[in-house]
Amino acid sequence: MAQTNVTIYGIVDTSIRYLSSDNAAGQKNFVITNGAISNSRIGFKGTEDLGGGLKAIFRLENGFNSDTGSMSSANTLFSRQSYVGLSGSFGTVTLGRQQTPLFDLMADHFDPLTVGNYDQNAWMPAGATLIRNSNMLKYYGTFGGLAAGISYAAGEKAGSVKLGSQIGGTLAYTAGPFAIGGGFQQTVSPTNSDWKDTAYNLSLSYTLGAAKLFGGYYRIKDSTGTTPAYFGVTNSAASINGGIGGVERKDDAYFLGATYQATPAWSLTAAGYYDKSKNVTVATLGNLGDGTRYALVGVAEYALSKRTQVYGTVDYNKAKNAALSELVGKDSVTGVAVGIRHIF
Amino acid sequence: MAQTNVTIYGIVDTSIRYLSSDNAAGQKNFVITNGAISNSRIGFKGTEDLGGGLKAIFRLENGFNSDTGSMSSANTLFSRQSYVGLSGSFGTVTLGRQQTPLFDLMADHFDPLTVGNYDQNAWMPAGATLIRNSNMLKYYGTFGGLAAGISYAAGEKAGSVKLGSQIGGTLAYTAGPFAIGGGFQQTVSPTNSDWKDTAYNLSLSYTLGAAKLFGGYYRIKDSTGTTPAYFGVTNSAASINGGIGGVERKDDAYFLGATYQATPAWSLTAAGYYDKSKNVTVATLGNLGDGTRYALVGVAEYALSKRTQVYGTVDYNKAKNAALSELVGKDSVTGVAVGIRHIF
Amino acid sequence: MAQTNVTIYGIVDTSIRYLSSDNAAGQKNFVITNGAISNSRIGFKGTEDLGGGLKAIFRLENGFNSDTGSMSSANTLFSRQSYVGLSGSFGTVTLGRQQTPLFDLMADHFDPLTVGNYDQNAWMPAGATLIRNSNMLKYYGTFGGLAAGISYAAGEKAGSVKLGSQIGGTLAYTAGPFAIGGGFQQTVSPTNSDWKDTAYNLSLSYTLGAAKLFGGYYRIKDSTGTTPAYFGVTNSAASINGGIGGVERKDDAYFLGATYQATPAWSLTAAGYYDKSKNVTVATLGNLGDGTRYALVGVAEYALSKRTQVYGTVDYNKAKNAALSELVGKDSVTGVAVGIRHIF
Repeated sequence: MAQTNVTIYGIVDTSIRYLSSDNAAGQKNFVITNGAISNSRIGFKGTEDLGGGLKAIFRLENGFNSDTGSMSSANTLFSRQSYVGLSGSFGTVTLGRQQTPLFDLMADHFDPLTVGNYDQNAWMPAGATLIRNSNMLKYYGTFGGLAAGISYAAGEKAGSVKLGSQIGGTLAYTAGPFAIGGGFQQTVSPTNSDWKDTAYNLSLSYTLGAAKLFGGYYRIKDSTGTTPAYFGVTNSAASINGGIGGVERKDDAYFLGATYQATPAWSLTAAGYYDKSKNVTVATLGNLGDGTRYALVGVAEYALSKRTQVYGTVDYNKAKNAALSELVGKDSVTGVAVGIRHIF
Repeated sequence: MAQTNVTIYGIVDTSIRYLSSDNAAGQKNFVITNGAISNSRIGFKGTEDLGGGLKAIFRLENGFNSDTGSMSSANTLFSRQSYVGLSGSFGTVTLGRQQTPLFDLMADHFDPLTVGNYDQNAWMPAGATLIRNSNMLKYYGTFGGLAAGISYAAGEKAGSVKLGSQIGGTLAYTAGPFAIGGGFQQTVSPTNSDWKDTAYNLSLSYTLGAAKLFGGYYRIKDSTGTTPAYFGVTNSAASINGGIGGVERKDDAYFLGATYQATPAWSLTAAGYYDKSKNVTVATLGNLGDGTRYALVGVAEYALSKRTQVYGTVDYNKAKNAALSELVGKDSVTGVAVGIRHIF
Repeated sequence: MAQTNVTIYGIVDTSIRYLSSDNAAGQKNFVITNGAISNSRIGFKGTEDLGGGLKAIFRLENGFNSDTGSMSSANTLFSRQSYVGLSGSFGTVTLGRQQTPLFDLMADHFDPLTVGNYDQNAWMPAGATLIRNSNMLKYYGTFGGLAAGISYAAGEKAGSVKLGSQIGGTLAYTAGPFAIGGGFQQTVSPTNSDWKDTAYNLSLSYTLGAAKLFGGYYRIKDSTGTTPAYFGVTNSAASINGGIGGVERKDDAYFLGATYQATPAWSLTAAGYYDKSKNVTVATLGNLGDGTRYALVGVAEYALSKRTQVYGTVDYNKAKNAALSELVGKDSVTGVAVGIRHIF
């Protein structure tokens, strides 16, 4: 049987979770949900050696909600990644639906939670990077110790190459225990080429024995009205209605965190996210002015093996003024969960 | 290639089928359809040995209609099962979308057809067990000869842990050729916590040489209005409109059957289902009073191998009074089919 | 691990494409899209040896858009193929969703592009064969040098075995470098059994050293209003609105082409399609009378390996009179693309 061309892989991460406020009335909820650490996924990938160091690669990755079996994105089978490309000494070029370079930078290097999966622990890196995009041409290359990424996603609007398009770029440099990275990303509204969502990032990490420290800053200027959809938790006014196109929202967003490998089995992670937003809009509520929000997250993982972990996690989000539109019911929400993650 | 962590498995069961009445006018139909014996499926599963008898397990199982390629449940990729869990000497704990313990009891032990796949041969065990649920925590354990299952599915309604929740439990005991089992299941309406669908079951089986006899009884009390959706065949008033919430329907449902391994290749199955319903409602028709319905099913299978069978099957459903809402066109429907089932 | 019963296979074909007219205003577009040569797919298939030359076979094949990860057909997981069957000395019988025999004839033997994937290079064989159908019983057999295919797809309308049904048949004969084939296909409207889409085909091919020549003719008489949906490019009036049922459109459609294996790595293909249509209707526009359209396509492929190709392609479509409804914006459209196709 010729199973040699494709590898199946995935993660099932499911948790039992309490939320202190989960509807407009501020009532608590108890749910069994897709996990805290990773979005559940199943994928098919392969590499073909073409000789002379050249390789053909592909990856088809589905995202699903492990608690219900439903797809993360309606009708999009490979909602996470769907690409084909070539890899060689020149770097790697891939074509299709892909993660933005800025998201890769966070997930692979600098976000203390490698970007979590709950609205409450992932809103900042999700909203700053927009996670992924279709119709993307992406390049990665390394030059000495410097890793560079660049991407272009076509907007596919006849008559305008700008509408709906996206460009992005990142640089990362590692020197011993110290790593520094940063990036830029600009996404043009699909309806007005003057409306743009622009994000800048600078991030650092430092490894200190069994501990690793992380920190970073995003500057987001968004007149496409996209940010509220990512920053808002499920059922928040921000998430349901989105922002108002043509009004420029500005976010200064900071994060700080640490991981600590306490024993071979136990690892601990703490992360803090702080956002200062200006000119916050929600389509149904108008211009809400300025706001602030912070989130604190703690995770304790126990590794039953390299592929299977059980964990407990606590998260606390608190919003003020305009940022209240990003939460539901109360000005703060506490989440507590236990879960299991299995990697295959 | 690292294919060692996941096994792909499935069933394709497709049949050519005649129905004596298949629309409101009572006209006959000729269809090529998803099979008589099993709902077609494809799944991905795995087991990881964690040492000390502990194992991590997962299963992601898609249901599809083999005649059209469409998913059984819109947008739900793993509509049949989507779980991760741990298994050890303490039993097995799993989390996610799963079959209810009462359904497992029928499919694995006591339904003569191991729960069929046509509306006409599966309505009773489907309607009594509700088949499966999302957001479920399930436990299985064995204590001497006794196998016990227990489940809790979260309703996930903020402000109420009752709304939409489900609890279930089963016991099964085998002594030589004799097996006895039973279970309980209660599902709370997602809109009114006083409305409940409660089912009790007691079942028996007895192995007699190449033959096996089955019998059982369900008591269903349902004020959620769910039963008609499962009991009604496709396009019946019951199936399309469902029942009326807040009115308690009661069903006393009995089944009896036998399988006979006539030769190593030939196996024969006969099953009968009889239901007496009280206070039957259909949303568009009101309270229809009481009804009765029975179904007779015969299956002859010829095994081309362990993994491939061809079969012929006949089914006859007859309804009276309120139960007429569960059929279409006439007070009885006869189905005849030939099909092929392949297990991979 | 028991991976022995199923083989995973597929194609990811993605291209960067320019279109000279891609909206009603005739504006150009630049897109990253599902490839020129093959529709992207992933499938699961298997064969079980049942002894005595008999085999059980199955195939479950998903079609997806590699540029976005979305499924080709909403909610239909195995939109390309979903069948189970038996194969032996008598031939092959399969049951489920399948390609029509007429499509197989084009894709496997006579279309110079093995049926392309863009609207602009595939409209004629797609519209003449309707590509595939659900609920199909199909038979293939070989008799000496003659290969015969026959199919029946059930319409599944209670009270009428005609409504929505389809029959098809093909014959192909190969003698040395020369091959001849032809077929017939009739699809009945699901709403009126007097409305039919009937297609006839006669095709030839001739191998001449490293070159192969192709040619063929379709006669299509369609009163179901289906043809415009297949012939029209995306966003054309024909594609969006379809034709008018009950009015018989006639198409005389010709194709001619050649492939040339210039070097072991380089292969070149040229194809031309010419259609003369009478009584063309579009639901929103009425009867448009007669039209003509032709398409010219050139492809240059460079094989990095047997499984990976990079390619460039140019296509030009030109319509007159009623056939203008099949294009958008202008009376002609030029497409230019480069892409990569990886087979796994």
